[in-house]
Amino acid sequence: MIIIMSPAAATAELERVIERVRSLGLDVHLSQGEERTIIGVLGNTAGIDRTSFEVMAGVESTVRITKPYKVASRDFKPANSVIDVRGVKIGGPELIIMAGPCSVESRSQILESAQAVKEAGAHILRGGAYKPRSSPYSFQGLGEEGLELLAEARALTGLPIVTEVLSPDEVPLVCQYADILQIGARNMQNYRLLQAVGNVQTPVFLKRGLSSTIQELLMSAEYILANGNYNVMLCERGIRTFETYTRNTFDINAIPVLKQLSHLPVIGDPSHGTGKWDLIAPIARAALAAGADGLMIEVHPNPDLAWSDGAQSLNPARFDALMSELRALASVLGRSL
Amino acid sequence: MIIIMSPAAATAELERVIERVRSLGLDVHLSQGEERTIIGVLGNTAGIDRTSFEVMAGVESTVRITKPYKVASRDFKPANSVIDVRGVKIGGPELIIMAGPCSVESRSQILESAQAVKEAGAHILRGGAYKPRSSPYSFQGLGEEGLELLAEARALTGLPIVTEVLSPDEVPLVCQYADILQIGARNMQNYRLLQAVGNVQTPVFLKRGLSSTIQELLMSAEYILANGNYNVMLCERGIRTFETYTRNTFDINAIPVLKQLSHLPVIGDPSHGTGKWDLIAPIARAALAAGADGLMIEVHPNPDLAWSDGAQSLNPARFDALMSELRALASVLGRSL
Amino acid sequence: MIIIMSPAAATAELERVIERVRSLGLDVHLSQGEERTIIGVLGNTAGIDRTSFEVMAGVESTVRITKPYKVASRDFKPANSVIDVRGVKIGGPELIIMAGPCSVESRSQILESAQAVKEAGAHILRGGAYKPRSSPYSFQGLGEEGLELLAEARALTGLPIVTEVLSPDEVPLVCQYADILQIGARNMQNYRLLQAVGNVQTPVFLKRGLSSTIQELLMSAEYILANGNYNVMLCERGIRTFETYTRNTFDINAIPVLKQLSHLPVIGDPSHGTGKWDLIAPIARAALAAGADGLMIEVHPNPDLAWSDGAQSLNPARFDALMSELRALASVLGRSL
Amino acid sequence: MIIIMSPAAATAELERVIERVRSLGLDVHLSQGEERTIIGVLGNTAGIDRTSFEVMAGVESTVRITKPYKVASRDFKPANSVIDVRGVKIGGPELIIMAGPCSVESRSQILESAQAVKEAGAHILRGGAYKPRSSPYSFQGLGEEGLELLAEARALTGLPIVTEVLSPDEVPLVCQYADILQIGARNMQNYRLLQAVGNVQTPVFLKRGLSSTIQELLMSAEYILANGNYNVMLCERGIRTFETYTRNTFDINAIPVLKQLSHLPVIGDPSHGTGKWDLIAPIARAALAAGADGLMIEVHPNPDLAWSDGAQSLNPARFDALMSELRALASVLGRSL
Repeated sequence: MIIIMSPAAATAELERVIERVRSLGLDVHLSQGEERTIIGVLGNTAGIDRTSFEVMAGVESTVRITKPYKVASRDFKPANSVIDVRGVKIGGPELIIMAGPCSVESRSQILESAQAVKEAGAHILRGGAYKPRSSPYSFQGLGEEGLELLAEARALTGLPIVTEVLSPDEVPLVCQYADILQIGARNMQNYRLLQAVGNVQTPVFLKRGLSSTIQELLMSAEYILANGNYNVMLCERGIRTFETYTRNTFDINAIPVLKQLSHLPVIGDPSHGTGKWDLIAPIARAALAAGADGLMIEVHPNPDLAWSDGAQSLNPARFDALMSELRALASVLGRSL
Repeated sequence: MIIIMSPAAATAELERVIERVRSLGLDVHLSQGEERTIIGVLGNTAGIDRTSFEVMAGVESTVRITKPYKVASRDFKPANSVIDVRGVKIGGPELIIMAGPCSVESRSQILESAQAVKEAGAHILRGGAYKPRSSPYSFQGLGEEGLELLAEARALTGLPIVTEVLSPDEVPLVCQYADILQIGARNMQNYRLLQAVGNVQTPVFLKRGLSSTIQELLMSAEYILANGNYNVMLCERGIRTFETYTRNTFDINAIPVLKQLSHLPVIGDPSHGTGKWDLIAPIARAALAAGADGLMIEVHPNPDLAWSDGAQSLNPARFDALMSELRALASVLGRSL
Repeated sequence: MIIIMSPAAATAELERVIERVRSLGLDVHLSQGEERTIIGVLGNTAGIDRTSFEVMAGVESTVRITKPYKVASRDFKPANSVIDVRGVKIGGPELIIMAGPCSVESRSQILESAQAVKEAGAHILRGGAYKPRSSPYSFQGLGEEGLELLAEARALTGLPIVTEVLSPDEVPLVCQYADILQIGARNMQNYRLLQAVGNVQTPVFLKRGLSSTIQELLMSAEYILANGNYNVMLCERGIRTFETYTRNTFDINAIPVLKQLSHLPVIGDPSHGTGKWDLIAPIARAALAAGADGLMIEVHPNPDLAWSDGAQSLNPARFDALMSELRALASVLGRSL
Repeated sequence: MIIIMSPAAATAELERVIERVRSLGLDVHLSQGEERTIIGVLGNTAGIDRTSFEVMAGVESTVRITKPYKVASRDFKPANSVIDVRGVKIGGPELIIMAGPCSVESRSQILESAQAVKEAGAHILRGGAYKPRSSPYSFQGLGEEGLELLAEARALTGLPIVTEVLSPDEVPLVCQYADILQIGARNMQNYRLLQAVGNVQTPVFLKRGLSSTIQELLMSAEYILANGNYNVMLCERGIRTFETYTRNTFDINAIPVLKQLSHLPVIGDPSHGTGKWDLIAPIARAALAAGADGLMIEVHPNPDLAWSDGAQSLNPARFDALMSELRALASVLGRSL
């Protein structure tokens, strides 16, 4: 961190700032120019609140130079992290497709979905048993029954399963069934939940918050990593902007940026990123072309009868057609599928 | 809800939509025009996902007519809700000021803060014992020790206390100390937490999420109300926009809108709404002028030594001066302070 | 400007940056720390593109220290600018109210509007003769006939008139009629138009763009000032955010921020800032409480028959009632009305 | 348009709305349900302001059913529009690459740029002679001298040229040199300029405004089309969001949406869409994968000496490498390059 003093700063103000830096266990390096003094702060400033210096008398502004995340950073680990989920390797040369319905609705629905996505070539089955819904009056998921049905679908198809967990006290139960724990967008800054999934070893699929910056996503990953779980995947799923034609604005820029800044695998979610089934194919292609390590796509046997998110789900035939397109695309991107 | 069929919709498509409506236990009223058919959906549609109809063949668009929240609505309860917290009445004619430091840092800091805000005329003491921080390496609050210090400050000054709770399993402990449970902006859609505070009777101070719409804030209030806790206050604390000069953009419009749509008390938070102490006074005045029932303001004995949020905290002298301004303002607004 | 070199920067890279700075006619001051070198750039950097340095090899980041606007800055002119428009002083102790219909529709409509707002105590009449409409098929304004009607309304009531100008080549004509030239939000960065109104002496009412930052607003003011017209007023009229309940989000923070950063008068527009007539009164009060020097309010004899913006216009009776409220408010704010 | 009356609407209120509809030359179709009456409005409602009905007593809400743009709509013209610029066909099966520097800086710079992009396979040369700059103190472009240099570069390479026009009165001059007139993002709603370029036959390259919706972009295209110039291309160049790591957020969703809604060619601009040269390649690939008809890319012989936008420009070697990647990609997308 660098603290830039104002040209009018008094010596006593400068001394007060230096004293404050030292009281936090950090050291200073002074650069005295003709007009102003600049203080370089030496030491681990990751937990420091810059604004607390900006408010001090005589300070003009501060600049953060080091990144506030450490373990999530590519500086910390230059090589890509590859996460092994029952033999499926996420983050390596192969593109990984996670597919399935928004919610587990019934035994037949999830088994039919699992078989359909398996046949089309998907690697991982998704399905929600605990659903975060904006209305308390909406369907909230089948709960543990849903988890059991997912396990049955896994037994049938061999596909590992990813499913959402909503609360720290539900982590142990969901871990009994899930191969990957999903943290939903609305919980990206639910720090108690991040700590809880950081304390297990089940891989975590962390979705970017609706209005979270790229840096905040990496800070949330850091919470999990700092607690000891290194199996974290990042998911771009669209952000909230002024545009209302689409449900969210898929931040395609975030994909190459996350790959530059971090070693963690990056997955794109074109279903939530657009909210419309007929935009899934072009955005799925775009996400891979931009460097994503895989995709999460909502697939439902009968999208127009789905209990949730039908508008952004593909039916099995369309998903199958998309998979063919993506295989052709993978080849020119130097990846396999 | 109204479903607008496209001019080209086939009779079979229309019938499929009607069948779907009826399968959800709702009834239809058809309006057949020259160009197109419009379906009025009769019954309780609060939990219905409109997009699941929009994806059906032959449907052009849908329109929600009734509000998705019920108990939070002024239609449900036309008179203002007034919440009594140890004799302090929030939502009535008197304007209520909640003040205190961002975090409880030490015994002397919180006792000094409590006495200062009490002397200046505040009604409720705020202070965080559990802090949601974007970095896992930042100060996370004193925990239960912080709650004990808050209770001591209450004993000293008589001021009721409001403090944040982060996780469903911490609700019972925080309820032992707090007079008001704060749900922070990052947890506004943490539905398990909303359910947990809905299952107690301690009043809840619900902060609007950084990028949550007014309707989503009311839906989150509905979660608490629907679980049986009717003591809910709403807080506008600034939203995330493209403007970076201020930490957040205080959505002044939300104050009269919330008062129109809901009977719940509405509190403005100019500290988080601006992020800068020298903007607190004008935005505090503006929030009251727009119809807020009170304010939450960060006050610290030494803002430039605060462990968090020092940049947006007033010192006691400035807070005292602001209170005088607000008293003069209250008189022309037909309120007391 | 400060250029922060990366710890790994080679000497040749440092020299290349220094050479580039000097090639722009600027000087450098070096601060060589243990870890990295920091280059202070001395001289007038207002027109320099910082990103062109950030892309150079060895550069880690740059920080702007001086503001990119000069004449608009309060540093340049510490005292408030007061603009005299036919004896009405904008920016002084008196709060100034500009009111009238969105568009001039007919002789009777504008004369009736002018008399109504005059009687209620407004100081300036607004009315659009050239309307920027998002649809080419919408009413585009009466053009010069509208200007003539505005002049007749001025003759009748004595109120100076403010009206919008859309194009550089229309500036001379509009100047023949208008006392204040309005630059609309969509033209805030129409630099040819800013230059054109900078080359006359008619006062300019500059509306903030829908998604322009506070700094960009001040830069657009700077365009006018740098061309020699010092009679500029700034208008906060709401910004575009994710919230859709209101037409725009009125950025109340911008009012005290603009008063801190600049000496120019600041006017709030609660009609555009909310888009709803029943939100005008609370936001009008809030804008003044936050420090605005005046308001622009849409008033129409029959809002529900207005050709444009009826939904955000007051009728004369409601405007009259609001003026009474604002007079009471002015007294506690140390202003007059 | 559909007008939904409130359940409590009085008969007189209904009649007043009907009368208003008819006074605008439109007809009504009534659907009287048990609870409420719905008014279908028949006729051309493209220029109607819906909010003017929403403000009428007894009206609950209104819904637009027809699109407010006509000529730009794919309903109006189902087949793709292909624009022929000196034999280069934009909007057909071949992907079109426009490349060159942000600004024309000197004879040698633009000739060198033109030859480099020509050799790498670009189809059209870009370069700014009139630059809209946020600071009045920044380089504003070489003006007519820049246009002459562009014409010389065209003579040398055979590449058609696209260059920006800022003001209606400059349209005739720029038309003498340019093969395509660029309307920049800040001028997307400069309606006088849109009318001016609508009155010539030179093709227009219309960039989406920083915070304009997809519908607003199409309405601005409609302005040009409605004035008689059918040669319009649309450009997605990133929108303004809360994310600050990138200069803009490239709205990848907009590409397939625009292709669905309109027959006009759609071009992606990854330079402005990201602001960083090292993000251009992934976003260029993504834009084509999402269905763009071409790209506009900033290329400069020496990006770190560029007078503007150096940070988002490729050098010739990197541009050449990107072109190879894009050719491979085109083949799997069913396009040629």
